[in-house]
Amino acid sequence: MKLHPADSIAVIFCAQRTDMDHEAYAAAAAVMSNLAAEQTGYLGQDSSRSEDGLGITVSYWKDDAAAKAWRDHPVHSAIREQGRGKWYESYTLHVARIERSYAWAKSGIGEKSGIEENSMPYG
Amino acid sequence: MKLHPADSIAVIFCAQRTDMDHEAYAAAAAVMSNLAAEQTGYLGQDSSRSEDGLGITVSYWKDDAAAKAWRDHPVHSAIREQGRGKWYESYTLHVARIERSYAWAKSGIGEKSGIEENSMPYG
Repeated sequence: MKLHPADSIAVIFCAQRTDMDHEAYAAAAAVMSNLAAEQTGYLGQDSSRSEDGLGITVSYWKDDAAAKAWRDHPVHSAIREQGRGKWYESYTLHVARIERSYAWAKSGIGEKSGIEENSMPYG
Repeated sequence: MKLHPADSIAVIFCAQRTDMDHEAYAAAAAVMSNLAAEQTGYLGQDSSRSEDGLGITVSYWKDDAAAKAWRDHPVHSAIREQGRGKWYESYTLHVARIERSYAWAKSGIGEKSGIEENSMPYG
């Protein structure tokens, strides 16, 4: 959860999980998250999953070339095939260009204490 | 979870909840979701929340004017103030323009059975 500059790319991945193979999925998801973070142009990600198995992961990239390079990464591609075979009922993926960003936090909370209470336009 | 056309707007709201007032929050969230769906230019939303309180809601809008009209809706504005006071530790919001979308589903699953197994570029 942080701000990203205007013109960076958000890849919005929404997936409905199957009810199988949870441990292997969690292991693969952790590997993917760490591997993504090592890629050139990676800016960060936000991820959440409801108990009913609906998950959203948004990864942020410096530009579209970086997002496409991650899409085409051989390890990512192999894990995606596994996901289609076992872990996902369905998913959607939206690739979008950030136009503006805001952040808000209660004051005085750890590292976020510097953010003011009003929304802060970034880009 | 559905495809949206190129040039539509995704509003990515990532929020860390406080550990208080869960019932009132859930009621307000339901009201907001239903009210958003009645707005001109609303295309849909995806939402998930992890047990640790991190939630992501992505709402999709026909254009930026529709997204801004929802931002400025008086009921939405009032609920946002309540959220800052009680329900959220912090949040980020990214407004992004969709460049391309894909959907994938296992074949034969209810209404999604018409979607082919390969990713389908939309916009």
